[in-house]
Amino acid sequence: MTTNLKAGERVDDLQRNHLQIIQNQEKFCFGMDAVLLSGFVSVKSGTTILDMGTGTGIIPILLSAKTEAKHLTGLEIQEESADMAIRSVALNHLEEKITIRQGDIKEASAIFGNAVFDAVTCNPPYMIGEHGLRNPDEPKAIARHEILCTFDDVAREASRVLKPGGKFFLVHRPFRLAEIMETLIRYKLEPKRMKLVYPFVDKEPNMVLLEASRGGNSGMTVEKPLIVYENPGVYTPEIYDIYGY
Amino acid sequence: MTTNLKAGERVDDLQRNHLQIIQNQEKFCFGMDAVLLSGFVSVKSGTTILDMGTGTGIIPILLSAKTEAKHLTGLEIQEESADMAIRSVALNHLEEKITIRQGDIKEASAIFGNAVFDAVTCNPPYMIGEHGLRNPDEPKAIARHEILCTFDDVAREASRVLKPGGKFFLVHRPFRLAEIMETLIRYKLEPKRMKLVYPFVDKEPNMVLLEASRGGNSGMTVEKPLIVYENPGVYTPEIYDIYGY
Repeated sequence: MTTNLKAGERVDDLQRNHLQIIQNQEKFCFGMDAVLLSGFVSVKSGTTILDMGTGTGIIPILLSAKTEAKHLTGLEIQEESADMAIRSVALNHLEEKITIRQGDIKEASAIFGNAVFDAVTCNPPYMIGEHGLRNPDEPKAIARHEILCTFDDVAREASRVLKPGGKFFLVHRPFRLAEIMETLIRYKLEPKRMKLVYPFVDKEPNMVLLEASRGGNSGMTVEKPLIVYENPGVYTPEIYDIYGY
Repeated sequence: MTTNLKAGERVDDLQRNHLQIIQNQEKFCFGMDAVLLSGFVSVKSGTTILDMGTGTGIIPILLSAKTEAKHLTGLEIQEESADMAIRSVALNHLEEKITIRQGDIKEASAIFGNAVFDAVTCNPPYMIGEHGLRNPDEPKAIARHEILCTFDDVAREASRVLKPGGKFFLVHRPFRLAEIMETLIRYKLEPKRMKLVYPFVDKEPNMVLLEASRGGNSGMTVEKPLIVYENPGVYTPEIYDIYGY
């Protein structure tokens, strides 16, 4: 099959089920956070999943292999990213299973309706506002900074589109953990499971993985730590396992 | 000096500055949580500290050695525990530095006034309500279960007695983390620092240490993990250090 690539794009192998993804290094490439979030997601077979802010579609593409979800939808506001995601879905022959929709997270419930998904995933922008940004309209800036949506928007829309008891999976930065917990609870997304990702066993964590339940009861599990590197440059067995090597 | 002990009581050496504490194994003995909380506390010299629910006074006694606090107050509702705490303070010749007061956490601000302490510490009851308790009036039950006060009471009173910018240090169980964060933020106690305590590097954490700031801004640090055992029965160097061996 001839891959339909545009200038600056390349095809990367995802090391799992021969899956591939189209990316443009000048714009935005997926990071370890997207892979770890995909590894953290746990859903029953037959579920429907919405990935909010899907970028080039990495999370639905990985979840199509890692879960028995019935259908996955990726919502992405940036036209160029959504276009790459659509072509990656086609490249992997996943058109039946994954739908990419260009649109705004802030309007997710207006686009899809209320209480329609069994699960929502999100790898949202981590940084607050446009502080210190020179080009807030660049794709990388939009993916990393809360320029087009805030965490409050993300939680509100996730809560609306989820069925009662539906699950919300997200990855974020630990420095915003207290605010995230408070916001989730305010939108009836009760935190049920958390995992901190530590680059090394003797370092501060740089990511937090969270699962919340729409309308769930109070009380959560904090899982054993996920440590990324055994030694500099050498992943721990758990990371190799998540990456699927 | 002759120690004034009652039936069932014993004197334990705290392995630090020759400090000792009177305890009664039938009633309640301090645990690792109190020691780890004392190690987590960081205050400037000359501060005043209130320990809410001080039990036998372990936290103010340890903090008198580990910090340069000007004065420490221990508030304890149970007469028997408060009496042991008073005798332990005398045993250590710390009457000038530590005051033990019998009273209810729920009335802390009524007893001491508003905005009077630089820091508050608390090792509160962890378990919710009296569920499954046979003897809810036993000292151990009162120390462990939310029989006489809830976490909401603890956070409300800590917020009231703290000066603006004052620090609240607590230890709790990870399963209540989301609720704790939400409650702290509701009472303007902004979480600023968190440390999870993992018994082993490959196990779920069983304690969480938190520092919140009265009226602080959003944004926190999650510290490197505190791992208790290197091997079964062998503490990690960090634990030996906190215990002061």
